[in-house]
Amino acid sequence: AIAAAAEALLAGQRDLAGLRILVTAGATQEALDPVRYLTNRSSGKMGYAIAEEAARRGAEVILVTGPTALEPPADVRVVRVTTAQEMYEAVLDAYPRVDVVIKAAAVADYRPKTVHAQKMKKGAETLVLELERTPDILQTLGERKAHQFLVGFAAETERVADYAQEKLKRKNLDLVVANDVTQEGAGFGADTNIVAVYDRDGLVAEWPKLPKREVAARLLSLIAQRVRRVS
Amino acid sequence: AIAAAAEALLAGQRDLAGLRILVTAGATQEALDPVRYLTNRSSGKMGYAIAEEAARRGAEVILVTGPTALEPPADVRVVRVTTAQEMYEAVLDAYPRVDVVIKAAAVADYRPKTVHAQKMKKGAETLVLELERTPDILQTLGERKAHQFLVGFAAETERVADYAQEKLKRKNLDLVVANDVTQEGAGFGADTNIVAVYDRDGLVAEWPKLPKREVAARLLSLIAQRVRRVS
Repeated sequence: AIAAAAEALLAGQRDLAGLRILVTAGATQEALDPVRYLTNRSSGKMGYAIAEEAARRGAEVILVTGPTALEPPADVRVVRVTTAQEMYEAVLDAYPRVDVVIKAAAVADYRPKTVHAQKMKKGAETLVLELERTPDILQTLGERKAHQFLVGFAAETERVADYAQEKLKRKNLDLVVANDVTQEGAGFGADTNIVAVYDRDGLVAEWPKLPKREVAARLLSLIAQRVRRVS
Repeated sequence: AIAAAAEALLAGQRDLAGLRILVTAGATQEALDPVRYLTNRSSGKMGYAIAEEAARRGAEVILVTGPTALEPPADVRVVRVTTAQEMYEAVLDAYPRVDVVIKAAAVADYRPKTVHAQKMKKGAETLVLELERTPDILQTLGERKAHQFLVGFAAETERVADYAQEKLKRKNLDLVVANDVTQEGAGFGADTNIVAVYDRDGLVAEWPKLPKREVAARLLSLIAQRVRRVS
């Protein structure tokens, strides 16, 4: 921690000092029974890279994370959750006390309506699984926004720019980071990402394929400029 | 590899030399769309421990594995698959050329009937997901059994002994390894396991909580005795 802090000081990169940043990362898991669950391909790498970089640059960081295979970054408060409901509660609990929220987690939109207490035995050739909506975390954060600066992610497979900007407006975000997860080197599982960043007025930045660490650094610089400007 | 072989020789543990053993491990993933999928809590640790120990004791090992966070063991041929269908094909392809099959993978019983080509957009409050059965690998292996020795796993949450023995008979297995995955220190994700082993005549062995490596060693000793006896 001391070496990282010294390095950041030498690099003049303490531009996030004094900011409390909440980062979410990874996928949630929604149980059907004690063994089976519904999830998605988020590895958590993007969110972990953001949390690590933000802490290195002086921010006080809370990382709310779904189950991942990653090592938690140094100097970050880690809150582990499994389901969308648990992530909702952890994020809402911290929300009043943070300046910036960066929601890099891929939260399940739907969960099984019934969670079986015992492992379901297979039987019929087909099975109907009823799903219900999970609480919409970003929507709630947008509705309850006071001083906070809200950054969302839009992982899409088509019409990426449209969907991302529509999401930004609908959820009252300050920035949205859009990526086409079907592109080679973008999105889930990869160590790189290819993103475009939008605000309410349109395109803010569009970057080539970069290591997720570098995407994190550039995104945090954009956020720092904007948060410092309004405060 | 040389060190491991030397160590095994010194320990007198080349009791599996000359045997070709197929091990399956991990969970399969069944896609709903390019982002979301259905899976289960299998970590792959039990299967990887068996593959590693079998190779160390001289067997020629093929490991057919779902996606896991584990390092592949040394001296093992690794075949990576994602879905139940892919695991079915990989296992059936190797089946005629192996002497023993140890099916430690937790294969999805059901998969979404429709896989959406694009990420589904959330909309309705509830959603109905139609699932269909995946091919039953163990059932097929049991039906096509010639010289092979078949070992299955039964991960249960209730009536463990009953379900396991019923599975052994229905699928024409030679041994079934049963565990109650609700027990502390047993089953998914843990580094230990608590199992009981059954054959057609009933209980063969029941072991206390042991490291998965030790469960693997004991299970392979049981298999070696039985395979050597019939050949």
